[in-house]
Amino acid sequence: MENNGPLNEALAATSAAVERVLDPILALPDGPERRVVEAMRYSVFSGGKRLRPFLVLASAELFGVDRTQALRVAAAVECVHCYSLIHDDLPAMDDDDLRRGKPTVHKAFDEATAILAGDALMTVAFEILASDETHSDPYVRLELVRELAKASGHHGMVGGQMIDLSANELELDEGAVHRLQQMKTGALIAFSAEAGAVMGHAGKSARASLQGYARDLGLAFQIADDLLDVEGTPEEVGKATGKDADAGKATLVGLMGVERARKQAEILSDQAIEHLMQFDDKASLLRAVAHFVINRSV
Amino acid sequence: MENNGPLNEALAATSAAVERVLDPILALPDGPERRVVEAMRYSVFSGGKRLRPFLVLASAELFGVDRTQALRVAAAVECVHCYSLIHDDLPAMDDDDLRRGKPTVHKAFDEATAILAGDALMTVAFEILASDETHSDPYVRLELVRELAKASGHHGMVGGQMIDLSANELELDEGAVHRLQQMKTGALIAFSAEAGAVMGHAGKSARASLQGYARDLGLAFQIADDLLDVEGTPEEVGKATGKDADAGKATLVGLMGVERARKQAEILSDQAIEHLMQFDDKASLLRAVAHFVINRSV
Repeated sequence: MENNGPLNEALAATSAAVERVLDPILALPDGPERRVVEAMRYSVFSGGKRLRPFLVLASAELFGVDRTQALRVAAAVECVHCYSLIHDDLPAMDDDDLRRGKPTVHKAFDEATAILAGDALMTVAFEILASDETHSDPYVRLELVRELAKASGHHGMVGGQMIDLSANELELDEGAVHRLQQMKTGALIAFSAEAGAVMGHAGKSARASLQGYARDLGLAFQIADDLLDVEGTPEEVGKATGKDADAGKATLVGLMGVERARKQAEILSDQAIEHLMQFDDKASLLRAVAHFVINRSV
Repeated sequence: MENNGPLNEALAATSAAVERVLDPILALPDGPERRVVEAMRYSVFSGGKRLRPFLVLASAELFGVDRTQALRVAAAVECVHCYSLIHDDLPAMDDDDLRRGKPTVHKAFDEATAILAGDALMTVAFEILASDETHSDPYVRLELVRELAKASGHHGMVGGQMIDLSANELELDEGAVHRLQQMKTGALIAFSAEAGAVMGHAGKSARASLQGYARDLGLAFQIADDLLDVEGTPEEVGKATGKDADAGKATLVGLMGVERARKQAEILSDQAIEHLMQFDDKASLLRAVAHFVINRSV
């Protein structure tokens, strides 16, 4: 086990900072709509690795972007991520009772509230990105809105989840599972890693490097997630395990076997790091993330 | 029955024009994510009055806004409206099998696909608003994104639906039902009526007038909707009727009785029209809409 001390500290600091941004934005109203905001807060303030917000902050640092502004983009991404978890956990979707070691939102509240909480978290994300405080350049804010919308929609996250739900009928090969993962988790991870470049008006070469990094990182992350589903216990992972095989889902672990998949995740992690060459020492946290995603236990 | 000829023609033209905008945006992909796009298209191209898009176009006309650009905003609003219908119809919410005379999305497809189609329609709306083609002024595009997010979120549409779902436990009085309606349907109607003013860089007075118009129009519209639920047949209305009373929902019709509610809708319609004074003849279609919403049969 390598020393993840600095990374773990940075992840914890990210989590605390993102929660400070979201706390006033998700202030509890007095009216009876309060219930949906309680559900939104339950989801957003329930821990999690905050990997996507961290990627936003780490990429923003590469280009000297103001941290207060980067934190707002990080918070927006986390809202979209949490919305997707809430909806994916619903009985009609993956039907999960446990998430991050706690009852899922539809279990702690009810299905209708969970659907609405997810919907509202998505609107919060776009409201944050479009606000003046997020960046002084309106074209940057608009690009963030457009790119987050694309990453989340039917060409990205939603499209990937649609394929995933149909996977047991589709008999997907490795290439098709790659594409599914790129859409379902890769697109939002890529948005996060590129957000700093957008905010910092970075050139094409820097953006291409971050795209390559995010693509390999996202796939490595997903394989590690699938390995945890096969090898972890619910206590370790904080959610039900063994679900992919039960649901007949197509995963790279299922197609490749555990050993080849683990090897593949390591190769992808190394590749991700190679994309960061031009950033020298400034990218040390992004490198640490690439190690972390394949060695994590949750 | 008054002569709604010009208005009906304008509504039909709006509907056709909005569909022309959305057709390429919702192009069917080749991959297995195609299913969710089919569900999005099923919802968006299933008719409907297109009241909200029409309000966008009519308010845009007041300020000489380019119609091609206004149509994009109209299309974005319709995406949000359709997403809200898909999610509201779900078994966990209002559990409706029929919408616009056809099976609801979760009946024609399945629940998971319906949830995802709603989610993706929301992202499409923000992607449209943030795109260069929607307005040359980036600050206008950003304001549209922010205002649509607010109108759709927990302070607006989603918050209103949350209250509506809890209404049978809450014993809401008329004031509370007013607030519920302002949030659930009023906020998106207000966004639609004000969008033209935002796009046309209109002054405060014009915006205040349109706000007043939209507030009264939205309430009149909702009362008319509740009256149809009480008095219409499913064949006439295109969806199940008598549902509000069955579900113990708090409506102004329930609280006021049919006669007083009908009178109230007429007063609100007249009030809505009075707000349009400063626009003279240019606002004739907006006036016709105020008559239409309380005299419609679907």
